[in-house]
Amino acid sequence: MKTILTGDRPTGPLHIGHYFGSLKERVALQEQYRTFILIADAQALTDNFENPQKVHDNIIEVTLDYLAAGIDPEKATIVIQSKMPAIADLTIFFMNLVTVARVGRNPTVKEEIKQKGFGESLPFGFYAYPVSQAADILAFNADLVPVGEDQVPMIEMTREIARDFNRIYGPVFVEPEAKVGGRIKGLDGNSKMSKSLNNAIDIKDSAEETAKKIMSAYTDPTRARKDDPGHPDGCMVYAYHQIFTPGHAAIKEECLKGGRGCVVCKKELIANMNGYFAPIRQKRIELGNDLGYVKDVLRKGIIKGQEVSGEILDRAKIAMKIDYRDILG
Amino acid sequence: MKTILTGDRPTGPLHIGHYFGSLKERVALQEQYRTFILIADAQALTDNFENPQKVHDNIIEVTLDYLAAGIDPEKATIVIQSKMPAIADLTIFFMNLVTVARVGRNPTVKEEIKQKGFGESLPFGFYAYPVSQAADILAFNADLVPVGEDQVPMIEMTREIARDFNRIYGPVFVEPEAKVGGRIKGLDGNSKMSKSLNNAIDIKDSAEETAKKIMSAYTDPTRARKDDPGHPDGCMVYAYHQIFTPGHAAIKEECLKGGRGCVVCKKELIANMNGYFAPIRQKRIELGNDLGYVKDVLRKGIIKGQEVSGEILDRAKIAMKIDYRDILG
Repeated sequence: MKTILTGDRPTGPLHIGHYFGSLKERVALQEQYRTFILIADAQALTDNFENPQKVHDNIIEVTLDYLAAGIDPEKATIVIQSKMPAIADLTIFFMNLVTVARVGRNPTVKEEIKQKGFGESLPFGFYAYPVSQAADILAFNADLVPVGEDQVPMIEMTREIARDFNRIYGPVFVEPEAKVGGRIKGLDGNSKMSKSLNNAIDIKDSAEETAKKIMSAYTDPTRARKDDPGHPDGCMVYAYHQIFTPGHAAIKEECLKGGRGCVVCKKELIANMNGYFAPIRQKRIELGNDLGYVKDVLRKGIIKGQEVSGEILDRAKIAMKIDYRDILG
Repeated sequence: MKTILTGDRPTGPLHIGHYFGSLKERVALQEQYRTFILIADAQALTDNFENPQKVHDNIIEVTLDYLAAGIDPEKATIVIQSKMPAIADLTIFFMNLVTVARVGRNPTVKEEIKQKGFGESLPFGFYAYPVSQAADILAFNADLVPVGEDQVPMIEMTREIARDFNRIYGPVFVEPEAKVGGRIKGLDGNSKMSKSLNNAIDIKDSAEETAKKIMSAYTDPTRARKDDPGHPDGCMVYAYHQIFTPGHAAIKEECLKGGRGCVVCKKELIANMNGYFAPIRQKRIELGNDLGYVKDVLRKGIIKGQEVSGEILDRAKIAMKIDYRDILG
């Protein structure tokens, strides 16, 4: 059985961009793959180190999202990153296999540094996160890593690290493949849905919150009156209809002809979206009332994760000749 | 009782530069301080990652040097760095508190990068080693760190990291003080004695090896004949006499007058140096014949080191709110 590693930074509840970009697929893939889902708290701290309470509080939020969306702890292991000593150890060893210049050329890192406007105050930990992410993946010897398009260079670097390690010390690590997921635009039309851009609908949003967000969504600014012809291709409401509304081709046609009002169109979307998420949201509320179960899932995930990653770290250390069992028994 | 942390990279047996620069003082200080001596194998790998066998083999060599020189495992704990998960974890967290620019300005790092001629191939791990060194020190909450003059900027960075951590997360770490030790020049007159410069006398060298090295030591190139006046101030033999020969003032006087031949002078030094190290070398040979004891010291050191550093890591994680005992019990 092949292994998948995926995960999220616990910096907020997950939104429908996470859901359609990755989580929905994880739920399907857990049937055929040994699945590890990493709650990347240590990585979240690389740009939230002054606000650890946020990271702390979102461990449970993200776990609720996973379980409500259909992650089955009997099939998939949810792992808290900072509880895996193997990941920190491997990060330290892998840092020797990557040059500072190589990290600087990584386009994902470059882009994120620019976006976050770090300038001179770029934290070392943030700069090191491609190496830390390689350690996340290789600590579980994942064959497959479902990621967004923007993360593909990270997987390439992980493959290089695995290859260099195996060449120098002997074969320990699998070179993982990236599996690129879909992407949902934000409510404002931005190509990325993101909490920090304030353009996200959370999985856990209530029907009312969802309605309010959709009603204020970006549609078509050139359209003054209901019977002006619409431009569905630039309209976020229509973009979401394509996900939630089976007969969306008819909607497009109607809109193009000028026969469809935006308010009606939005209300239909709201109904479909809320219908889609109703069972997930219901389950999330139930799980929230049974935190004992949720915490138990996390505790068991830590134990299983430590077992698997600890065994792989041991193999790496033996290959590196710093296990010392020949000296110390 | 205050705590000391010191250590060495296990890249070769220790030489008399290590002995007089630090080891001799550690033996004295172990009476008054809780002492941890770190065998920095993970750090040695940052610039020896293609040669792990060297690091592996020198764990025992360095331990023999420690014990032969008088380190008492009842008073001082010898700790293998890579066996301390707390150090790797703290390195990851501390990397968030240091900017890339700040590490680049560290004069020790700058100098070492230049010396080693890394250029574009500077490994990330080597660049990160000031942070890793801060983790070594803070993982044991050392009050005092005996170091060479060139390492003082490292301790300054460690103090900054401790201060920033305590400010952001609450008081966990002690700001350590540097204790600057002496320095012995190399046989060639280079200001640094170093295995890689091939100008070192090892603690474990035999009397014959010592004699051979001293006989070829740098003396006074301007002096053609025995009764020419000498220049003891630039002479390495005289420099070492100042350490090993109680009546060295008379030697200087005699040399200045031209009444002292270099060969006689070297032979006298050889006798004194070998006399000084004879008991240490004898003990080292005996310990080498009882590796069971040496290995037991290392095993006990690992356990004690893990206990102490693990407890400090726990406190750090609680302060950082990523211990999760409030969530997970």
